[in-house]
Amino acid sequence: MRILVVNSNTTPSVTDRIGAAARAVASSGTEITAVSAPFGLPLIVTRADWLAAGPATLAALAQHRGRYDAAVIACFGDPGLDAAKELLDVPVLGISEAAFHAASMLGRRFGVVSFTAALRPMFEECLAHHGLASRCAGFRMGPAFSGDPGTVAEDRLDLLAALCAESAEQDGAECIILAGGPLAGVAPLLQPRVAVPLVDGTQAAVRLAEAMAGLMPRHPRAHRARTLTGFAPEVAGLYGA
Amino acid sequence: MRILVVNSNTTPSVTDRIGAAARAVASSGTEITAVSAPFGLPLIVTRADWLAAGPATLAALAQHRGRYDAAVIACFGDPGLDAAKELLDVPVLGISEAAFHAASMLGRRFGVVSFTAALRPMFEECLAHHGLASRCAGFRMGPAFSGDPGTVAEDRLDLLAALCAESAEQDGAECIILAGGPLAGVAPLLQPRVAVPLVDGTQAAVRLAEAMAGLMPRHPRAHRARTLTGFAPEVAGLYGA
Amino acid sequence: MRILVVNSNTTPSVTDRIGAAARAVASSGTEITAVSAPFGLPLIVTRADWLAAGPATLAALAQHRGRYDAAVIACFGDPGLDAAKELLDVPVLGISEAAFHAASMLGRRFGVVSFTAALRPMFEECLAHHGLASRCAGFRMGPAFSGDPGTVAEDRLDLLAALCAESAEQDGAECIILAGGPLAGVAPLLQPRVAVPLVDGTQAAVRLAEAMAGLMPRHPRAHRARTLTGFAPEVAGLYGA
Amino acid sequence: MRILVVNSNTTPSVTDRIGAAARAVASSGTEITAVSAPFGLPLIVTRADWLAAGPATLAALAQHRGRYDAAVIACFGDPGLDAAKELLDVPVLGISEAAFHAASMLGRRFGVVSFTAALRPMFEECLAHHGLASRCAGFRMGPAFSGDPGTVAEDRLDLLAALCAESAEQDGAECIILAGGPLAGVAPLLQPRVAVPLVDGTQAAVRLAEAMAGLMPRHPRAHRARTLTGFAPEVAGLYGA
Amino acid sequence: MRILVVNSNTTPSVTDRIGAAARAVASSGTEITAVSAPFGLPLIVTRADWLAAGPATLAALAQHRGRYDAAVIACFGDPGLDAAKELLDVPVLGISEAAFHAASMLGRRFGVVSFTAALRPMFEECLAHHGLASRCAGFRMGPAFSGDPGTVAEDRLDLLAALCAESAEQDGAECIILAGGPLAGVAPLLQPRVAVPLVDGTQAAVRLAEAMAGLMPRHPRAHRARTLTGFAPEVAGLYGA
Amino acid sequence: MRILVVNSNTTPSVTDRIGAAARAVASSGTEITAVSAPFGLPLIVTRADWLAAGPATLAALAQHRGRYDAAVIACFGDPGLDAAKELLDVPVLGISEAAFHAASMLGRRFGVVSFTAALRPMFEECLAHHGLASRCAGFRMGPAFSGDPGTVAEDRLDLLAALCAESAEQDGAECIILAGGPLAGVAPLLQPRVAVPLVDGTQAAVRLAEAMAGLMPRHPRAHRARTLTGFAPEVAGLYGA
Repeated sequence: MRILVVNSNTTPSVTDRIGAAARAVASSGTEITAVSAPFGLPLIVTRADWLAAGPATLAALAQHRGRYDAAVIACFGDPGLDAAKELLDVPVLGISEAAFHAASMLGRRFGVVSFTAALRPMFEECLAHHGLASRCAGFRMGPAFSGDPGTVAEDRLDLLAALCAESAEQDGAECIILAGGPLAGVAPLLQPRVAVPLVDGTQAAVRLAEAMAGLMPRHPRAHRARTLTGFAPEVAGLYGA
Repeated sequence: MRILVVNSNTTPSVTDRIGAAARAVASSGTEITAVSAPFGLPLIVTRADWLAAGPATLAALAQHRGRYDAAVIACFGDPGLDAAKELLDVPVLGISEAAFHAASMLGRRFGVVSFTAALRPMFEECLAHHGLASRCAGFRMGPAFSGDPGTVAEDRLDLLAALCAESAEQDGAECIILAGGPLAGVAPLLQPRVAVPLVDGTQAAVRLAEAMAGLMPRHPRAHRARTLTGFAPEVAGLYGA
Repeated sequence: MRILVVNSNTTPSVTDRIGAAARAVASSGTEITAVSAPFGLPLIVTRADWLAAGPATLAALAQHRGRYDAAVIACFGDPGLDAAKELLDVPVLGISEAAFHAASMLGRRFGVVSFTAALRPMFEECLAHHGLASRCAGFRMGPAFSGDPGTVAEDRLDLLAALCAESAEQDGAECIILAGGPLAGVAPLLQPRVAVPLVDGTQAAVRLAEAMAGLMPRHPRAHRARTLTGFAPEVAGLYGA
Repeated sequence: MRILVVNSNTTPSVTDRIGAAARAVASSGTEITAVSAPFGLPLIVTRADWLAAGPATLAALAQHRGRYDAAVIACFGDPGLDAAKELLDVPVLGISEAAFHAASMLGRRFGVVSFTAALRPMFEECLAHHGLASRCAGFRMGPAFSGDPGTVAEDRLDLLAALCAESAEQDGAECIILAGGPLAGVAPLLQPRVAVPLVDGTQAAVRLAEAMAGLMPRHPRAHRARTLTGFAPEVAGLYGA
Repeated sequence: MRILVVNSNTTPSVTDRIGAAARAVASSGTEITAVSAPFGLPLIVTRADWLAAGPATLAALAQHRGRYDAAVIACFGDPGLDAAKELLDVPVLGISEAAFHAASMLGRRFGVVSFTAALRPMFEECLAHHGLASRCAGFRMGPAFSGDPGTVAEDRLDLLAALCAESAEQDGAECIILAGGPLAGVAPLLQPRVAVPLVDGTQAAVRLAEAMAGLMPRHPRAHRARTLTGFAPEVAGLYGA
Repeated sequence: MRILVVNSNTTPSVTDRIGAAARAVASSGTEITAVSAPFGLPLIVTRADWLAAGPATLAALAQHRGRYDAAVIACFGDPGLDAAKELLDVPVLGISEAAFHAASMLGRRFGVVSFTAALRPMFEECLAHHGLASRCAGFRMGPAFSGDPGTVAEDRLDLLAALCAESAEQDGAECIILAGGPLAGVAPLLQPRVAVPLVDGTQAAVRLAEAMAGLMPRHPRAHRARTLTGFAPEVAGLYGA
């Protein structure tokens, strides 16, 4: 099975990190290809960023079309996900979508932990969009943050461990989602210090994409062809056929 | 006061229709400018279409920047709305957003009527996104439709009147939103045959945009400048400053 | 346009304060008349108070009938609002209703700030009644309060500024409603110290009433005449025709 | 135990009917006093009617103050209920409140049946207010009705039986509330034709009022005395002490 | 009237305590029989415990079948309740169900107080199952606890009083449920120190069971007989006829 | 990987059918063992049945303990699921849980189709329990049914196709769950006649169980050992260590 993992931003080091996390849990017969968005923004933070990241993510999906059996959109917030599900004939999963569903199957109540409260509105909207808010035991977030996102996971590791403990003990979380791009891959580091299972969105998405691809083989979508102007040819191509 | 009304699709006849509806309710001191999206799709129907219509709508907002005191996104589904609210320093309203809020202020329960059930999922998602689902008395939609959207309002006028009657009598609707682009401007035609007030999204948006512009004068947004690649310069300009 | 603003309590100094706030945002062609309830209570705090304030508010609306194009009920909790919408042939808005809708159009998530936690249950019920609870990022309220409501806004200005900061930073509020009668008119004083827009219910209601009056011209209501005994003649008059 | 049953409208024949239904289920030691509202309206149908019925119901409760251990507000929609709970030192129950709670304790899902769809909005609002909407399997209501409310129960008995069958078989209702004043007392007549238990609001309220009076003996309320003007002295008396 | 009160665990001292609390509020003509589960677990804490306590509770109900007019399942979480309602021809109430309904009839907003946060997930699930979450003003729970559940009520009495004060003052609770088996019977001790009414689940259940038994006399259930293997004969007997 | 599939009833022919469906989608390296509940009921229909099926399902899980890497509870309604998740150190999934999650990942809105309305309450409760009700576009169910569950899928195939068409066209379902034991394995037969993807719960559960087992390797559970009496030794064993 071939899985395309799209980093919705344009930063190659993040793409590498995501690819490594994906490969660590993929089944033996699964081949992972991790790519960056071909254009857009180096970091996705606001709702305006999500909007711009949507076509950029579709462009990556279009460029590799026909060369994967399932795809993962590896950006918390799942930019372009609903459109991709409509336009493509293979399963496409977002990493926040995957984190919420996997966590719900692991226990009745999941917590969400991240390093800064600034991300909470985005996470709450994303959770509401996927419909699983009633399964969430609560959010535990760190204070405002203005440092390097590339090292925040390590810099705030003790804080994250403390937030996880609060989530489990105070909120009754039975598993915990480590949310937000900068925390990708930090779960193995943190797990020994936390009493309940930790969920990494990218890894959940890869396993669930394998599951869905086996369940729902390639099938034509009802999309009707239309002429889209003003976007990269590969994006227009998705709408055109 | 100057209000920019953006038709999120590229069809000029629709833009003309929207502009006329807007001018019919604008206050005497208000100047309406109605423009089409500079690129994108001739008709917005699916979630994938919404995604493409977002940057196209932002492009129109960017091209006229500085020349309006409030803006209206005149496409049911409100493409680009959340991003526009973040990026611009004047009030921006969507026509479905405006229809839901205006209808809620007219009565406790509003109905939603449209000519085909195919639009119901989109309307329900949009209603849920704006948070007013509990105020909705129910949807009444016509059967599948494959004719000309440009004349469906007139072709199905009797059906619409019957659906409105069901909405008021069976569902207890105290006012009714005529939803979907092809029904823009049909409210005055239909109102004499309907016992409860009808709400037209474009007209609601124009009046509410006037209200909000008076309430919340131009103010700087907290958006931090970033370099956006792969989009039209005017869109990149919105992110850049 | 003529707008009647009804203070649902019997305290003239509050009526003056409300009238001034209303005039500050009214359009140039709008004439504001602010009146007190002709009977009832000097202050509206409990659910029992709301009940008594309902007929008192209707009485004020009835006394001035025919001399306004829209009305505002200027008491947090909107006493008599649902009945007034049924009985009158012009738009009637409540100030909490208006605050919730205006805040929802300004941003995805609004905070609610007030000077004492004792008001929280009332605000939560009112918010739930209007159906916009999912748009609320949270409440931030001061401690118990037993001082003078007439000066609490000034006395607790620093506290209010701190609560607003928490609402924006911790809860992710993108705009903030200053809730409760005693805070009417304090927004301009506080705005320079707060990073997100502040919403004053009275002012929101005036602008939205202007909008609705333009959208929905005077129209007969379906109310059937009935004989009401035991109430002031002007209230009975509303039911009688 | 003494229970006061207040008919919130001014029609004595309805009061008699309610009193008889109440006595039929009261415990042997319970004395039922049924009274009409001393003023107000002969029939309560709209939201405006609910508002007027509130002070009228309080007046009845005040006139008999000190001569009952619990009270029942016998009008679907429970006018004045929240205020009465605040102002009185004995349990006060509404018949719709009681019907919803009793039905929830009889089975997981209750249906609501009534003779005309025109009442549905009121019932839905009342159900939402009491918070038990998730327990409701659905509404089954007859067509528009313009006959005599005093005989509609008997006139539409076959229709009611058919609606109850649909509620049980199609909606999965495990018990059914016969809702609306004109159906008071019709449950025993209808029960032999219905496979699931029928709930009469007045009777549920009497039994639950007995329960609550035993559980929560007379206790002082936190209400602070205030001067209320413009209402009957007995109502003002409730606020005054 | 005869009421069977089933302690779903196997600890006789708990059964005695429950029986005493029940008798303290029962009507003069009511006879209380309190029994332990005939098998199962000495303490019910987890979801797995609830599952095991279900058949054990049914067994107790079956052993005494025909000798009671209503039954109470006296274990927070109400194990076996839904099945018992289906299988028995008399009313069966759970103590958490009863607490939630009684509290809702006492005031608009109830608080939930208990001695340790570890019980919160269970209480929240139980509250959601009964559908009354919107009536809950919030939870106030003590810290982790590893002492003797038999004396925790007395050991943590000051803490409980403080939590009740927070619930009333910060959360606006108008009455408070003391939740969890170990707090059964502690309400009278605590009530003098708390400004709002306290609700004890067992006592609420006894009074409400009396009410329901009078409302809904013994009636055949639609259950169809089936052969159940692998359970105690008395449980199989419930399914068999 | 080894997956144990437990049929929660005692009917071997159903177990065979489930096993075949499971094997049809399992990955090449996965070994499926399908077993019946060792005791209990031949068919699970009511809430009382669910209660009895819980310990029976746990008994099957306990008998094979240590010989599987993940387990599936193959009975709509997921009896014993929450307890099994607590007691076992490998992932356990229910087939309704799996159907809801898989359908949510396939599209924004899923429909639920089954052959008789009698099952609707159970399905709705199960859907609410898993928290995904907002993703459901609606239920389409056949009329009352008293025939042979073993052949109903074939007998009502035309009806099912018609219900699926209504779900897609009227309700806007983007994929459809065929719900209820008797429809297990009918999806391949029906898919050619339905325009949107069909989801079979057993097959979804097998693929998702593979995914979760890879994501969350065997880990100790926090369960504390307790002595359980009155149940089969293998069930008691789960509680004991």
